[in-house]
Amino acid sequence: MAQSWHMMIEFEPPMVASIVSNRNFSFDALTATRECVINIPTVEIAEKVVACGNSSGRKTDKFEAFGLTPVRASRVSAPLIAECYANLECKVVDTREVNRYCLFILEVVKAWIDPAKKHPRTIHHMGKGTFMVAGETIKLRSRMK
Amino acid sequence: MAQSWHMMIEFEPPMVASIVSNRNFSFDALTATRECVINIPTVEIAEKVVACGNSSGRKTDKFEAFGLTPVRASRVSAPLIAECYANLECKVVDTREVNRYCLFILEVVKAWIDPAKKHPRTIHHMGKGTFMVAGETIKLRSRMK
Repeated sequence: MAQSWHMMIEFEPPMVASIVSNRNFSFDALTATRECVINIPTVEIAEKVVACGNSSGRKTDKFEAFGLTPVRASRVSAPLIAECYANLECKVVDTREVNRYCLFILEVVKAWIDPAKKHPRTIHHMGKGTFMVAGETIKLRSRMK
Repeated sequence: MAQSWHMMIEFEPPMVASIVSNRNFSFDALTATRECVINIPTVEIAEKVVACGNSSGRKTDKFEAFGLTPVRASRVSAPLIAECYANLECKVVDTREVNRYCLFILEVVKAWIDPAKKHPRTIHHMGKGTFMVAGETIKLRSRMK
């Protein structure tokens, strides 16, 4: 699935909160398996991301339909996507807010990046098919983690 | 405070989840008042954002110290910041996950933007003082909200 709403919530262990609508096939899969991989794409495959968002795994093998390559993960059953810049293998560790907000708490148990992508231009959903593409990075003198 | 970890969780009513560390002065203020404003800055004031992140409201009047202008909000007591592109007036509506994750559920009760900023270049904290600056936006044929 294509997924817009997620955030880090802890550094150690690394944890992510993620909203997955209960109207999605992925909601059922995540609830049943309690595992997933968060695949982080770059602008080069933006069209494939949107194609994934506009279709359902109930009816479509999205890997085959959109030319994406599954790669075996090391800690979970769900696959990585070879074409993505980063892949985060996750386990569901807390479902307390799933009924109320469709909010899953995930622990990242293994993280991968593609070191060949030196300047990954990630995409960020702004709503209704508009995406912000990551621009330059700046470094400031910060004591923030 | 400068704040990295937040996400939308609902369209209607508009709701945001936000992590505020219990080591921050803002944690005490948010817990006591159950109100806040999320101020969304652009790259032009990135240095001021970091200055806010490197100091505490316990000791410093950050508006005065960093040349920021408070503006009266319409629905909450906390002020807007005139120099920010957007300001979201919020009320705390759920504190169930505050003890466990410092996770506040906020409802956005009023939203402001500065219409003079046609192409707001927002900044996105990547950790350790590195920020991604928003680049171009692209539009794709999406059925996603």
